[in-house]
Amino acid sequence: MRRKILLTGDRPTGPLHLGHYVGSLKNRIAMQGETDLYVMIADAQAITDNFKDIQKVRTNILEVACDYLAVGLDPEKCHIFIQSCLSELPELTMYFLNLVSIQQIGHNPTVKAECKMRGFDESVPAGFYLYPIFQVADILAFQADIVPVGPDQTPMLELTRDVARKFNDLYKTKLFPTPQGVYPKMEKVLAGFDGQKMSKSLGNAIYLSDPETEVIKKVKKMKSDETRGSIKDPGDPEKAIAFSYLDSFDPDHSFVANLKEKYKEGGLPDSVIKERLIEVLLAFLKPIREKREVFHKDPEAVFSILERGTEKAKEKASQTLAQVKEAMGIRYSFIYK
Amino acid sequence: MRRKILLTGDRPTGPLHLGHYVGSLKNRIAMQGETDLYVMIADAQAITDNFKDIQKVRTNILEVACDYLAVGLDPEKCHIFIQSCLSELPELTMYFLNLVSIQQIGHNPTVKAECKMRGFDESVPAGFYLYPIFQVADILAFQADIVPVGPDQTPMLELTRDVARKFNDLYKTKLFPTPQGVYPKMEKVLAGFDGQKMSKSLGNAIYLSDPETEVIKKVKKMKSDETRGSIKDPGDPEKAIAFSYLDSFDPDHSFVANLKEKYKEGGLPDSVIKERLIEVLLAFLKPIREKREVFHKDPEAVFSILERGTEKAKEKASQTLAQVKEAMGIRYSFIYK
Repeated sequence: MRRKILLTGDRPTGPLHLGHYVGSLKNRIAMQGETDLYVMIADAQAITDNFKDIQKVRTNILEVACDYLAVGLDPEKCHIFIQSCLSELPELTMYFLNLVSIQQIGHNPTVKAECKMRGFDESVPAGFYLYPIFQVADILAFQADIVPVGPDQTPMLELTRDVARKFNDLYKTKLFPTPQGVYPKMEKVLAGFDGQKMSKSLGNAIYLSDPETEVIKKVKKMKSDETRGSIKDPGDPEKAIAFSYLDSFDPDHSFVANLKEKYKEGGLPDSVIKERLIEVLLAFLKPIREKREVFHKDPEAVFSILERGTEKAKEKASQTLAQVKEAMGIRYSFIYK
Repeated sequence: MRRKILLTGDRPTGPLHLGHYVGSLKNRIAMQGETDLYVMIADAQAITDNFKDIQKVRTNILEVACDYLAVGLDPEKCHIFIQSCLSELPELTMYFLNLVSIQQIGHNPTVKAECKMRGFDESVPAGFYLYPIFQVADILAFQADIVPVGPDQTPMLELTRDVARKFNDLYKTKLFPTPQGVYPKMEKVLAGFDGQKMSKSLGNAIYLSDPETEVIKKVKKMKSDETRGSIKDPGDPEKAIAFSYLDSFDPDHSFVANLKEKYKEGGLPDSVIKERLIEVLLAFLKPIREKREVFHKDPEAVFSILERGTEKAKEKASQTLAQVKEAMGIRYSFIYK
């Protein structure tokens, strides 16, 4: 049996944070080596809503790549690549656009929500509106079996499966597997330190690259169970953000369970939990930050890793494109020797 | 001053007819050598509404290429190329999609009309809906100064000019000229032999490849001035389709003028006009048909011409793409040496 192919990635619009680690990076590290893992730095997609500030996207390619390498993605075991360097992706998109209706793309609730969030209601840039179909091409270019997705990406995954089936049916081929989504376990979705969804734009995230003082400051700001009147009252660990971080990062699970019991009983100050969390996070982040600094000081080395990954990814995508053209009957032998 | 760049082309969905000759081929032949002329066989665009019958598109690439060569397009003086072989075109499209809104594309009256004509009202394939923006990329990929267009293509040309200006403004470059449209003179738009608009789908066209018997049959079917009761009555040359063909193809203009006078006076049978037209058309088409047969019997030679043209076109398009990426700041030097 052939190894499963897995596509995943991030938009280079800012450095990665602990939410990325828990929600996806950790899984990638576990799966690298066992699967054919392609990790895409999605600059072309990031440009669809940053076309007026491309410098931001450009700068963050290095930041995201350093995060990947620092956290343990191993270029010997996975292919980290830059999306915009693969002309095969928009070319495949062009052919897949024939298999979906413009109405079908417009009905995507994620796109609708994101358009609203960005105030695009009146006039949506076409590139942004169409990005789900570009994502379909990203996934199918690698003939991915597995795609890690968030719950809000279900419509995009369904679109991908639909296009894969339509293409196979119409052009009488078995080229595309219908990819399976892998969802992160819900208890692992970390909130921001203010209790809201963790996001770059809300500025409530702890970054993999944050200096120690910053980590300490952010942990101290973490929301506690605000319903309890004083330290002596019983608290609900579910309502204290710091506990969810301890669940993810404290290697000593029984210690955390013990702390939670004490919190429920009452009498445990939040500062104790936070001090434990600071200790745990600093220990977790220290080797990452140190490794990251080494890479960050040597961008040439990072770029050379990206170059190799991009070459590998291009190899696979161009093979797929050739198969797509072959199946459609437009791989003209007099042009492609 | 640099030579003007001109982009033109045809969808390979059927062989070319006399309407193509009068409306565009004749102009191209006049302009080849004096301009940098790129002639695109638009297979990818043809696929947007023939994705279920790609064989038709594939077959007609050879037919259209033979028509081009037979009629006098000279591969030493122009570049005949196959659209789908240029990955640069969808790649440029991807970036231009960021500069237009999905609403702006939807407002294109030509797209609206064509969607209606094809019964796409309820569910328009996205590829078809978006083809104006792919056309924008076709034109801008060659940094064309001049684009021969029909009156129904004005909105597409305006979109191109808009994208060119927006790109130049946003990325602070002078890369794209705002292309000028060249419209065929209206008296030269040939009707089909039934008096309706000449079109492949209506089957009312005389093809460059029609055998003599077919030409004779079609001329004999041509609509005359049906308002006149008998041959003795005066006729209106404007209402007799054969005259418009004589205007375009009879080298003896005073002879035609004379015939028209007689037609107006009355007493001139339509058969006389049609016999003259048959004589003129057979003389015009004979060398074309003969040359066409030579090419058609040697597809390898034709394909090798297409291959050379495609290489040249790819050279220009990939230069433009590099300039586009440079201007946007995404031409990563560590990938593109």
